Amino acid sequence: MTEMNGAESLVRSLIASDVETCFTNPGTSEMHFVAALDKVPGMRSVLALFEGVATGAADGYFRMAGKPACTLLHLGPGLANGLANLHNAKKAGSGVVNIVGEHAASHIELDAPLTSDIAGIARPVSHWVHASASAADVGADAARAVQAARTPPGQVATLILPSDTAWTAGGQVADPCAVPGRGHLDTGALERAIAALDGPDSLLLLGGGALSDAGLDAAGRIAARTGCALLSEWSNARMERGAGRVAVGKVPYPIDLALQALAGFRRIVLVGARAPIGFFAYPGKPAILSRDDAEIIALAGAGDDLTGTLDALSDAVGGVGVAAAGVGTRHDIALPQGAATPEAIAAVLARMIPDDGIVVDESITTGRAFFAATTGAAPHTWLNNCGGSIGYGLPVAIGAAVASPERKVLALIGDGSAMYTPQALWTMAREQLDVTIVILANRSYEILRGELTNVGVQNPGPRAVDMLSLSRPDLGWVEMARGMGVDGCRAGDAPGLEAAIRAGLATSGPYLIELDC
Amino acid sequence: MTEMNGAESLVRSLIASDVETCFTNPGTSEMHFVAALDKVPGMRSVLALFEGVATGAADGYFRMAGKPACTLLHLGPGLANGLANLHNAKKAGSGVVNIVGEHAASHIELDAPLTSDIAGIARPVSHWVHASASAADVGADAARAVQAARTPPGQVATLILPSDTAWTAGGQVADPCAVPGRGHLDTGALERAIAALDGPDSLLLLGGGALSDAGLDAAGRIAARTGCALLSEWSNARMERGAGRVAVGKVPYPIDLALQALAGFRRIVLVGARAPIGFFAYPGKPAILSRDDAEIIALAGAGDDLTGTLDALSDAVGGVGVAAAGVGTRHDIALPQGAATPEAIAAVLARMIPDDGIVVDESITTGRAFFAATTGAAPHTWLNNCGGSIGYGLPVAIGAAVASPERKVLALIGDGSAMYTPQALWTMAREQLDVTIVILANRSYEILRGELTNVGVQNPGPRAVDMLSLSRPDLGWVEMARGMGVDGCRAGDAPGLEAAIRAGLATSGPYLIELDC
Repeated sequence: MTEMNGAESLVRSLIASDVETCFTNPGTSEMHFVAALDKVPGMRSVLALFEGVATGAADGYFRMAGKPACTLLHLGPGLANGLANLHNAKKAGSGVVNIVGEHAASHIELDAPLTSDIAGIARPVSHWVHASASAADVGADAARAVQAARTPPGQVATLILPSDTAWTAGGQVADPCAVPGRGHLDTGALERAIAALDGPDSLLLLGGGALSDAGLDAAGRIAARTGCALLSEWSNARMERGAGRVAVGKVPYPIDLALQALAGFRRIVLVGARAPIGFFAYPGKPAILSRDDAEIIALAGAGDDLTGTLDALSDAVGGVGVAAAGVGTRHDIALPQGAATPEAIAAVLARMIPDDGIVVDESITTGRAFFAATTGAAPHTWLNNCGGSIGYGLPVAIGAAVASPERKVLALIGDGSAMYTPQALWTMAREQLDVTIVILANRSYEILRGELTNVGVQNPGPRAVDMLSLSRPDLGWVEMARGMGVDGCRAGDAPGLEAAIRAGLATSGPYLIELDC
Repeated sequence: MTEMNGAESLVRSLIASDVETCFTNPGTSEMHFVAALDKVPGMRSVLALFEGVATGAADGYFRMAGKPACTLLHLGPGLANGLANLHNAKKAGSGVVNIVGEHAASHIELDAPLTSDIAGIARPVSHWVHASASAADVGADAARAVQAARTPPGQVATLILPSDTAWTAGGQVADPCAVPGRGHLDTGALERAIAALDGPDSLLLLGGGALSDAGLDAAGRIAARTGCALLSEWSNARMERGAGRVAVGKVPYPIDLALQALAGFRRIVLVGARAPIGFFAYPGKPAILSRDDAEIIALAGAGDDLTGTLDALSDAVGGVGVAAAGVGTRHDIALPQGAATPEAIAAVLARMIPDDGIVVDESITTGRAFFAATTGAAPHTWLNNCGGSIGYGLPVAIGAAVASPERKVLALIGDGSAMYTPQALWTMAREQLDVTIVILANRSYEILRGELTNVGVQNPGPRAVDMLSLSRPDLGWVEMARGMGVDGCRAGDAPGLEAAIRAGLATSGPYLIELDC
């Protein structure tokens, strides 16, 4: 083992720390890591043709596996290409270990074409950034990167690996570092929460890990005992849903609807959620969505023991053994005929979401009707974008499918969003991932048409509207998918969508549906 | 005019500073800028479906127009998506003005989903970063951003525009700021250069603006008088070439070939070029490519008056009125029959490069044979990637075509590179840009197969090789292009390529050729 180089010690140390999946787009400076993959069993490597696919896949993997994958990225520009989906991962509380190759130390000072400030690029999206100093350090640095990534709820850790530390002998395999525990219950806040949750003008606002099966069950029992309302944030990294589970709505995205939805609550208890704020600021409208006089009790944050907190709260309000409020029952919804309106699509989804399926939702405007309509669908897991940077959905679907090969993934993606990371389709084909993709093709950045009005622009002219349009030419998603090895079809109405989803779910590999809507 | 908001003052000030093209992917925080486009004539807006396309297009635009375009990007993640091509622009010395929307000041502290450290993301790729403080400041800030972008040879300037500064009244249109001049001739260095350039063991190494028509002509006269050799850097932002122009080779990319090419030179004079270094460090090989005892004279850097410097040097060595050495003559090359080998493709290109065409070269491994073979092609302009981050070619072709609507663009793009920014095809279709694209489809990150060996990895295993392969599934470029509204065809041999290029050049819009090679 004395001849082990730094790259091999890196791979072995990652595996020792239970990182066993690598989403990668490597370059020259990462060739030793790539070579080590053949020497060391236990690391599944998945090639992405664009780094944003790799980082988004790592995000989706963490959400479903509950442990980090690593990415392997080529220097500063490779990291830069993955930055937007690392932003989303950071906001979702997903743990990711980025391995970023760097020039050999002696080469950095020469300012070669690919030289850049890698740490500077990493910092805005990383909780932890470190550059290895020598081959002997690489293993221990990797273990610390995994530790950082596993710090609850999950963090983005970026390890910069100069190529000479990878190719030089003297690598040492490191044992895993201890993972920091979740924060403990704040008993003072618990007392205040118990007092606050009383009747329909009180709200238990859930986020993060509070939306697990156990967390939802406890929340439902708390609601049954106290009469409080339950809501989740607009975007949730992962939420368990469907028939048999406590149905929890969301604070709406449109600012006026959000203000309305929260206007009745005088007391809000936060468990894994943050105090509700608007996505954007709008002229003349508040950004804080709760009423001015609302009492807000931050009971537990994203890094705390959320299920334990909800159990303690349930115990305190006498919720043990009580039937949870708001449990969804299996709908029997008729197949809508005619056009694929948002409501008709929602009805089809309510019928077709597969049992134990994973729904990756980047449906933007068209999808606002989906959530309420699917509380009575088969039990499933719902993933949202928490960082607002579009292009998250197709990559996250890859990661979810890799982490959960036994479950079917249904990805609902707006056409504008899908065009950010279309390369994801190729990786789905190569890995034969069980993903059915519905592209909601409204040929527009439809959300921005509304936002023009919301920010006070009346009667936008043709040049403005043209900047929000995806037509001229229309995108042909079925052709693009075929070009990347993914089969698919086009659907134009609700029955056509249902038949297409049925076909997609019946195949074990990826399948793309372009839905005119 | 008292009612003008910040956004309108921004657009008017940019136009006053001669910025008349905007490559954009806007979001909510940029809606007022978009709205202002209808009020203010004179700004051409080009929509990109991914920000890396917008920033790469701005790079290509600068190279051909000689003045900056602006980009309009949505918050930190939108900027992040454009970062890799800004890295390339920075390394090419291209001037770009980025306008990046930001939340209103009061919203930033709420840490909304899209909140990020925009300045932190911008800094690694920007020479100048500034956030506007109020609507009244926006116009003057825009003028200063353009000034920074026009600082020779060209810089990346990033102006962060909080949405309240865009929507608030009180905008002021600013006059243009003075553009800093180019650096003056260093007469001491000129004396040393005159002494150094003497015979075939002396090299005049050219880069940047020295590769203009006038610069090449002066260099050719200097070579005729002194017997020095002429070379350019491996990557050049823009080089004039073809029959009737002084043919200048390049320092090769492969490290051993580069060392060989430079081994004979005891004296190297740099004009717009940097001292030659390797792209990457390799174990046991030098990174500085010139011989250890070489005298290196930095006569003029990228920001200096390069044509003036070469003229002065030519005058000093008695080059006035002398015939330039190494002028390329029009080849009469036969059409190769059979497979599309690199040499056969090069021959086809030598025949088919259109008169006054613009060649955007991201041909990577396959393209190494192209350069030498095309010195006798019709006169043309050749653009290289100076930052090494792949995915530059298709976007740069957009910018070149927008800047030079009267010229034909021929883009030579490796399949791996093209997959980084395929969304560029849609913008080409929408704008009906006169671009003929040859995708060099070798189904592999072929360059990395060589690099595995170069960094000392012998006999890579199947898992390593799989990470460098673009097959399983093969990419169908013609289908992908059609899905984005671009017509095309597939070619499998040299005569097929020539016929396909002929068809592409005959159309006035974009045309894609997938070449099996």
